[in-house]
Amino acid sequence: MPDPLVTATPSAYDYPLLVKQLLVNALAVSAKQQITYRGETRYSYADLRRRIGQLASMLSSSGVKAGTTVAVMDWDSHRYLESYFAVPMMGATLFTVNVRISPKQIAYTLNDSGAQVLIANAEFLPLLEQIWGSLAHPPLLIVARDDDCSVETASSLPVACDYELRLSMSSSDFVFGDFDERTRAVLFYTTGTTGDPKGVTYSHRQVVLHALATAATLASPREGQRLHREDVYMPITPMFHVLAWGMPYIAVMLGLKIVLPGRYEPHLLLRLKQTEQVTFSHCVPTILQMLLDGARGDSFDLSGWKMMIGGSALSPGLCRAALDRGIDVFAGYGMSETGPIVALSQFPPGAMHAEADKDAGTDESVRRRCMAGRPVPMVDLRVVDGDMCDVPRDGRTQGEVVLRAPFLTLGYHGKPEASEALWAGGYLHSQDVAVMHPDGYVQIVDRIKDVIKTGGEWVSSIEIEALINEVPGVQESAVIGVKDERWGERPMALVVRRPGSAVSVATIRQRLLALAEASRISRYAVPEATRIVFLDEMPKTSVGKLDKKRLREWID
Amino acid sequence: MPDPLVTATPSAYDYPLLVKQLLVNALAVSAKQQITYRGETRYSYADLRRRIGQLASMLSSSGVKAGTTVAVMDWDSHRYLESYFAVPMMGATLFTVNVRISPKQIAYTLNDSGAQVLIANAEFLPLLEQIWGSLAHPPLLIVARDDDCSVETASSLPVACDYELRLSMSSSDFVFGDFDERTRAVLFYTTGTTGDPKGVTYSHRQVVLHALATAATLASPREGQRLHREDVYMPITPMFHVLAWGMPYIAVMLGLKIVLPGRYEPHLLLRLKQTEQVTFSHCVPTILQMLLDGARGDSFDLSGWKMMIGGSALSPGLCRAALDRGIDVFAGYGMSETGPIVALSQFPPGAMHAEADKDAGTDESVRRRCMAGRPVPMVDLRVVDGDMCDVPRDGRTQGEVVLRAPFLTLGYHGKPEASEALWAGGYLHSQDVAVMHPDGYVQIVDRIKDVIKTGGEWVSSIEIEALINEVPGVQESAVIGVKDERWGERPMALVVRRPGSAVSVATIRQRLLALAEASRISRYAVPEATRIVFLDEMPKTSVGKLDKKRLREWID
Repeated sequence: MPDPLVTATPSAYDYPLLVKQLLVNALAVSAKQQITYRGETRYSYADLRRRIGQLASMLSSSGVKAGTTVAVMDWDSHRYLESYFAVPMMGATLFTVNVRISPKQIAYTLNDSGAQVLIANAEFLPLLEQIWGSLAHPPLLIVARDDDCSVETASSLPVACDYELRLSMSSSDFVFGDFDERTRAVLFYTTGTTGDPKGVTYSHRQVVLHALATAATLASPREGQRLHREDVYMPITPMFHVLAWGMPYIAVMLGLKIVLPGRYEPHLLLRLKQTEQVTFSHCVPTILQMLLDGARGDSFDLSGWKMMIGGSALSPGLCRAALDRGIDVFAGYGMSETGPIVALSQFPPGAMHAEADKDAGTDESVRRRCMAGRPVPMVDLRVVDGDMCDVPRDGRTQGEVVLRAPFLTLGYHGKPEASEALWAGGYLHSQDVAVMHPDGYVQIVDRIKDVIKTGGEWVSSIEIEALINEVPGVQESAVIGVKDERWGERPMALVVRRPGSAVSVATIRQRLLALAEASRISRYAVPEATRIVFLDEMPKTSVGKLDKKRLREWID
Repeated sequence: MPDPLVTATPSAYDYPLLVKQLLVNALAVSAKQQITYRGETRYSYADLRRRIGQLASMLSSSGVKAGTTVAVMDWDSHRYLESYFAVPMMGATLFTVNVRISPKQIAYTLNDSGAQVLIANAEFLPLLEQIWGSLAHPPLLIVARDDDCSVETASSLPVACDYELRLSMSSSDFVFGDFDERTRAVLFYTTGTTGDPKGVTYSHRQVVLHALATAATLASPREGQRLHREDVYMPITPMFHVLAWGMPYIAVMLGLKIVLPGRYEPHLLLRLKQTEQVTFSHCVPTILQMLLDGARGDSFDLSGWKMMIGGSALSPGLCRAALDRGIDVFAGYGMSETGPIVALSQFPPGAMHAEADKDAGTDESVRRRCMAGRPVPMVDLRVVDGDMCDVPRDGRTQGEVVLRAPFLTLGYHGKPEASEALWAGGYLHSQDVAVMHPDGYVQIVDRIKDVIKTGGEWVSSIEIEALINEVPGVQESAVIGVKDERWGERPMALVVRRPGSAVSVATIRQRLLALAEASRISRYAVPEATRIVFLDEMPKTSVGKLDKKRLREWID
């Protein structure tokens, strides 16, 4: 039998999939394209490439080599973008530190990562002073400052050098060699609901394949819910959070103008949208709500803004509010462990034209936009029962989303048991409950642990929250399961009113009962009056999701 | 130092890039999408998947296993599409036989490939009878018939079975396992200008990466010169020719309606364009000319047809004629050895809007559309001098196009010397002469061997041909270099007149002299009157390119 493997002639270049190759075309055809930080600093792709070389030279002279972990603590900046390329391109690992978790957790992740170098925005020096003593092997500290770099920052920390000062003295001629495409490119931590944060890693191969598959998916709709080469891109999911969903790599690969907004301030984001003509962003629902609130009654024009939503469910109410402002809003689906993007709520062929004939805010349009949507090419997304058998594609039968794709994490950093649990049976377990529609579109119902099991039925907390949120006067809500002797569990609703609103328990309950009457939801899904409680503020996680873990602790 | 490679937990699915995974989403979201053969046979993607399973079962029972080579001789059919998937998905190699080369060459390629099974359209049985005796190891012969499969074809060949009959009796439940992504998926032969045809192979990894990168590129323009999910796709580059440029894999991955036109008959192609609402095709310039001629004076509406042109240079005259009929025509660039697509003449951002304000047929628009264009992401395309140094990006300095990409062939089948020559210095040598424009767009000037070296200058044969083709009354032309004692070489023009035209040597020469006067071309580039000769017909290669090799033989 002939050898079925393709053999390469000795001189052939057996192209490994490396992060550096996402830059090749950007430089060939978009060298003059702009990148701006807050509209203040502004440079070209050619400058970006030059500074990537300088950063690598600077890190190299600081001892960074293949296998070294380099941590970054910053808001979304041009410096962050430089590290997205320079660090992996050296064969080192970029560790994007989540700066929104507690100082204790940050110290834990820095220790667990084994980071030998830390690039930190000067803003985080006070925080670092708090935790420096608890670092087992304190990293070499490089400080980046937005203001004049000659200004000394009073700090007790052993600052090795200043980012801009040292960069300006470094050569841009660093030679980025080739290496195995399975080399670790990035590391970050996911803060689950239990235990310590878990380290998620992606290889160069995975970063590149995620960029290619997501770009093909985002670009391919005829119109609507799409990214194209003339878009202006601004992330509103932090660059420390799952690589800002991998979108900066895609933006660079396609040569887009990039707007990096620093720390997210609603007014600045809205201003940058106008002044830099931003057309494509992505964020969690909380941020979208914040942007809509910030633009209310103001002269901000939000139309022509394409906004991909992830992190938690996009509710129909929020979706409608965004559509009303002319935002082409649509959900994406994924997790820290999945690259992240594995599905997008793009319309099926033909649907967009039908929508254009009517009102953009039709129920069908809203329903589509809030779904997880259609899987990205190469993604094998199944909704399965407890025996790993596919549930019927009927839009009703619930099961867990399990996945295979070329860009899913292959295990948690140093956590063999959690890794095996994640991949039980050879599929990545999302812990998301979903239904599969006959047309192959996926709709997430809830997180497995958030589903409320009551009287033999499964009630989706997300569905009830969305319905409560549509009651006038309600700002947001969280529905959790509480123990009940008779029913096993019962739903409990925690509700935050809009400022000035006096919406009552009775109003909320009547609304839900009416929906149960109309068979929209199960009767079991309506909380008793004593289980509808008002809060002043909703607890949130570091990435802006409802913190149901803390709510459960309060209730217990 | 920590191990820099990502390690997979034992249960993780370490997703190899295999052809079968291009089907995953097609089936999930486009199971009802249509595929039609000539508008006569019509079935869904779900049927395609079922028949792929049946074909694999049938081949398996015929002895096909991992490493076996299965040859196919057919025009563009649904059966060809089935073999594009079933054969590689079994770990076997699909050999797409070029049926337009001579019987002797076909025999050579069948012998060289080691094919153990041959699926042939009944139309090719007479040809096979001619060459059967010269096959060292005659393959198992499966015959496919368009008409009723019960009809016996009189043939002296040992036909093993009938495709449809045997398929209908085979199980669709074939299990397609996983294997190394570097397994050979396809093999075909490129008929160069010298020596025997050379076998080109691609691995599963390469087929998948070409599909992803090309899809991202084709889909990403804001408007114009793009492929999207609502396009209806019809190949007009044969499926035996570099996998129809890889486009059938992309069409399936994106879930497009696919129209397979069988043998190319201009009238049928034009009719299918209308009846099946085809919106995206690709072909060589000769076929485009044939389509325009076929539609002349007829009621065919060609508007809304996006047509990617490759194989040889798209001339400005042909481009303008296509634009006049409402075809969104644009060039692609690549070779049998390069996947094939490595560049596309899509407009740079902003240019399309400028064009919409004016006439689509502006000189600038035509100039752009005829270029090789911008490299596909991940493609490292350089234009280099003899020392492998990049030529200036000035749009004037000529050099050879050399390439690196994740989907270039890694060597010719069983030809170590030719393989090393192809990859000399670690870059694939295209043997195409080009200039690089300041904006990163590439313009092919000529094939290295076709450039005419005269009086110390290099004259592009393609450029002179395009100018001659614009003279009224000229149908097509070929310019070749002929030996000259004084100048080394001199250009010689071979011209075919349009039917009924009496265009003269003097007219052609005057036109070229005027262009030299206006500094559009060099004075050296104008052939002497004795070196402008009329032919009745132009010799073409099996894929419709000008056969300059034969012209040179005639002249010598």
